Amino acid sequence: MGTAGMTLSGIRVLDLGQIYNGSYCGLLLGFLGAEIIKLEPPTGENLRKRTEGQQIDSYAFNLLNLNKRGITLNLKDPKGKELFKELVKKVDVLIENFATGVMEQLGLGYEVLHKINPRLIYASGKGFGSTGPYSNFLAMDLTVQAMSGLMSVTGFPDGPPTKCGPALADFMGGVTLLAGILAALYQREQTQRGQYVESSMHEAILPTLTSQLEGYFRLKGEAAERTGNRHGGLSTCPYNVYEAKDGHVAIICANNSHWHSLCKTIGREELAKNEKYSNNLKRCANIDYIDEEINKWTRTKSRFEIHKILFDAHVPSAPVMKLAEVVNDPHHLERGMLQDIEHPEKGSVRVFGNPVRLSENAPLKLRSAPLLGQDNDAVFQELLGIKPEEIQGLKEQKVI
Amino acid sequence: MGTAGMTLSGIRVLDLGQIYNGSYCGLLLGFLGAEIIKLEPPTGENLRKRTEGQQIDSYAFNLLNLNKRGITLNLKDPKGKELFKELVKKVDVLIENFATGVMEQLGLGYEVLHKINPRLIYASGKGFGSTGPYSNFLAMDLTVQAMSGLMSVTGFPDGPPTKCGPALADFMGGVTLLAGILAALYQREQTQRGQYVESSMHEAILPTLTSQLEGYFRLKGEAAERTGNRHGGLSTCPYNVYEAKDGHVAIICANNSHWHSLCKTIGREELAKNEKYSNNLKRCANIDYIDEEINKWTRTKSRFEIHKILFDAHVPSAPVMKLAEVVNDPHHLERGMLQDIEHPEKGSVRVFGNPVRLSENAPLKLRSAPLLGQDNDAVFQELLGIKPEEIQGLKEQKVI
Repeated sequence: MGTAGMTLSGIRVLDLGQIYNGSYCGLLLGFLGAEIIKLEPPTGENLRKRTEGQQIDSYAFNLLNLNKRGITLNLKDPKGKELFKELVKKVDVLIENFATGVMEQLGLGYEVLHKINPRLIYASGKGFGSTGPYSNFLAMDLTVQAMSGLMSVTGFPDGPPTKCGPALADFMGGVTLLAGILAALYQREQTQRGQYVESSMHEAILPTLTSQLEGYFRLKGEAAERTGNRHGGLSTCPYNVYEAKDGHVAIICANNSHWHSLCKTIGREELAKNEKYSNNLKRCANIDYIDEEINKWTRTKSRFEIHKILFDAHVPSAPVMKLAEVVNDPHHLERGMLQDIEHPEKGSVRVFGNPVRLSENAPLKLRSAPLLGQDNDAVFQELLGIKPEEIQGLKEQKVI
Repeated sequence: MGTAGMTLSGIRVLDLGQIYNGSYCGLLLGFLGAEIIKLEPPTGENLRKRTEGQQIDSYAFNLLNLNKRGITLNLKDPKGKELFKELVKKVDVLIENFATGVMEQLGLGYEVLHKINPRLIYASGKGFGSTGPYSNFLAMDLTVQAMSGLMSVTGFPDGPPTKCGPALADFMGGVTLLAGILAALYQREQTQRGQYVESSMHEAILPTLTSQLEGYFRLKGEAAERTGNRHGGLSTCPYNVYEAKDGHVAIICANNSHWHSLCKTIGREELAKNEKYSNNLKRCANIDYIDEEINKWTRTKSRFEIHKILFDAHVPSAPVMKLAEVVNDPHHLERGMLQDIEHPEKGSVRVFGNPVRLSENAPLKLRSAPLLGQDNDAVFQELLGIKPEEIQGLKEQKVI
């Protein structure tokens, strides 16, 4: 069903993704124009009905499965395995993010499927990767955040290690897997062969610690692990989240020109002139004093007022937006990164658009995630030539 | 200099990246086998010497600029612009992450360069994108984290909004840009034409808030914004970071089987049998009690001891690793995600490997980031046929 004139027109993907990691990767391939067939067990993947007693599909499931066709297939059933292998012959890409070894135990690992379809790109989203001492560790966003060091560097020096609120490991892993698939598609144009692609959440997020690693290496392990809202290496000041009348505002002076402009704007030119604060290192040595002087000014104004004043003065700042503001962000709405669409069970729902922006990718019309098995009849008939009466039989045998 | 047998062999990239976002994108293209020419102003990009008085290049600069060739060029100089346009004819991809409008003001925006080289893929890493009401806002990781809602959902309910320690916006934006470039390379195989690719840090991180958006939509805005180390939607329990004898440990029960196994393991089978805690929603209603009962057990043991016991019991858990442990992580070392290489100024340094794993990408040998202008002679001669004596003249005129 891929869209003509889109970047990945003509590419078909079998998406076995579950929860966030694999499903997000499939979502973006679809946004780029590939035909995505989401394959779930006959009971549905875990994200559909996450909360006990939930009657309709979760919002999260809809967010991450827009524009996909939906089929069901029991991969533990011999007939299900047979149909799966037939489907694999008809697709360019397979995505899965099961625990390490699950696909191999089903007899459906890369080695097997590569023989059936040598052009197949087999993409595996793993928590810790398929090799190495942690490969069998149970990986969810929380456990990967813990083991990767993300928690140790988030939060305040006098508080506990703190989880990053966003599901960073899942999504960074998912988009890294996407890059791997796209690279493999390019390479297949040269070699005519598919390959095995892997991303590990644990590896994908390691580079995000660059500031902390810089501090660690530079100070030979003596750097503070957690610095709250201050700079990760404590080498820039001002750099913090300050108190406004109605919330908080982030301010940074990346250079002395920002600093001079800030001092002037808050009516404290004597600070800019004082040799004691004349560069970042000196300001860092007086960080508590400087942060408090800035707070004295920010406390008298609202977040958006401060942002407007500092924008005009060319000092980097930003209001700390609340979740309710983000959901209604005018910038996201204008750029189509948030859009309202109709869902058959929920009515109007707000969803993400495509963060991968390409001038030659035709505009995308978003449609809601498939209901469970919604496209069974169409896909099995179209791809494998299975007749409607046979499909009914497969349903009764719980194969699909 | 691209490596034969690698995924992007034969692809040449002009990398104008600075600080993290664009440079990380270029780093990964290089890891996939492209030839990366990092182009800096004659004074060097800002990350080289980040701290005042720093004599040698920063560790962060080295981490994000491995395996690149390094040239200098003054894009404000007329002769510099002329040479730049000649270079653009010789490359497949250009990466830049300047503030919106900078390249256009230099007369070197997409429209101009696309005419010079219609096959060029022009990749722009932006903070808030090139259109929309925020397009001119000053974007750094801190300000984007503030405006995107990440800070509002990180930290404890009784504490302030908290920055995610990792530079999430920069890196998520960088790898999203990478995906866009790879998609455009694939499309160019079909159309023979390049295109404009954009990623906005602000957009790239929005999907990472899926849990919070689910909670917001489901509870019609009544969800807690910040839940500390508990589940973002407060719909899973146990799910927290618990106290160990020597630090902290993350534990989740994603389903009732995990819960029953946990209760048994900590010697509290009566909890598993109690109807009051028989599903996630009921456990969430008693979250303080349950978390404290688990803490009573975890406090008696070390992080790694707890992880071992719970791994054997099939309950997802993970020690909260400290930065010093991450830097020496045996799993990263075994998989080559951390490697030691020689740096001409620093001696032995530890760096990242490639998180985008492809079975048909030839093994990569890592080498340190270029010194400032290290490859000026070779690149200008090789690509533009400029003779050594002319290069000397360009240096004297401060063009390079």
